[in-house]
Amino acid sequence: MTERGLLIVLSGPSGVGKGTVRKAIFESEGTDFEYSISMTTRNMREGEVEGVDYFFRTREEFEELIAAGQMLEYAEYAGNYYGTPLTYVNDTLDQGKDVFLEIEVQGAMKVKEKVADGVFIFLTPPDLTELKSRIVGRGTDELSVIEERMEIAKAEIDMMSHYDYAVVNDKVELAVDRIKEIINSEHLRVARVIHRYIKMIKEL
Amino acid sequence: MTERGLLIVLSGPSGVGKGTVRKAIFESEGTDFEYSISMTTRNMREGEVEGVDYFFRTREEFEELIAAGQMLEYAEYAGNYYGTPLTYVNDTLDQGKDVFLEIEVQGAMKVKEKVADGVFIFLTPPDLTELKSRIVGRGTDELSVIEERMEIAKAEIDMMSHYDYAVVNDKVELAVDRIKEIINSEHLRVARVIHRYIKMIKEL
Repeated sequence: MTERGLLIVLSGPSGVGKGTVRKAIFESEGTDFEYSISMTTRNMREGEVEGVDYFFRTREEFEELIAAGQMLEYAEYAGNYYGTPLTYVNDTLDQGKDVFLEIEVQGAMKVKEKVADGVFIFLTPPDLTELKSRIVGRGTDELSVIEERMEIAKAEIDMMSHYDYAVVNDKVELAVDRIKEIINSEHLRVARVIHRYIKMIKEL
Repeated sequence: MTERGLLIVLSGPSGVGKGTVRKAIFESEGTDFEYSISMTTRNMREGEVEGVDYFFRTREEFEELIAAGQMLEYAEYAGNYYGTPLTYVNDTLDQGKDVFLEIEVQGAMKVKEKVADGVFIFLTPPDLTELKSRIVGRGTDELSVIEERMEIAKAEIDMMSHYDYAVVNDKVELAVDRIKEIINSEHLRVARVIHRYIKMIKEL
């Protein structure tokens, strides 16, 4: 009998570096899970690739999938939809493979409602000064946009209490190591493996 | 303000190799915790050192400490007392240092009653054939003694459900790595660090 895989959810405030950490995890050695590519209605940024960074869809296409119940989670964020296709995730977990989601905080909370035994990891900035500079330093945005981002980040940090782990993104390599250790450890949680040992006891 | 250290409890069936794994952990790099040496009334075995492997005490001395409330836990096992001196453990945790206990299953359950947020790790044999050979292969014991050990082991495995993690002791180095990863990860649990972030939010 195949043991169902782990659903690993990486989230955190806007600008904290979720995407960078996620990419580094997948490029590092000793990882053995599937990355669930998110779907979004936002515009493709320079350097992004369809089907690699995101599945880029129109608002109409995305809403059709929601209506068909084909999203594990979805959220509207800064005027765009972001979401996780359901079928891919479930099929992969059933095959005994771990699935790795890197999603916004709103989406992570919806996943938690549906998959309570997922591993929820919150990526945090090393300190708030740096978070502020990340939010402000992104480009040429107006002050009101920056202030809005600050309020969103504040609310997101407040949501940390709903997560299992908080990983500081001080250096990408360190954050990657911490997340890999968390995943390895979660595979050893008694609640996940006890059925194997109950079988061993019965055979004594 | 110093954050209270983690109480790490390593336990598991008789003969599974708890002592060997514990020693290897303390000899390995990157560990930063105190080992709480247990107290016992059993006879010293060849190679064991007073104050290193155990504090060896008479039955009378041990019972005086119990009466004085100076044991975090104690248990009678195969006719001898085993226990953990209380004061040392509490003082060390308060200093922000992690404390590592390697104790019998009975004792671990008593610690759990008193320190619910401890990290409880159950060391398991790679398979039951090997557990059996470990129990049988120890020496020149009578069949009734061996059968008694088997029943004890069966009950102990049954108790695994009360632990947080199950670590297979297939190779000592691998068991050590797994335990170190668990300890690192437990330091990142939101329930343990959330107060730091609540402070950050207030300062925004």
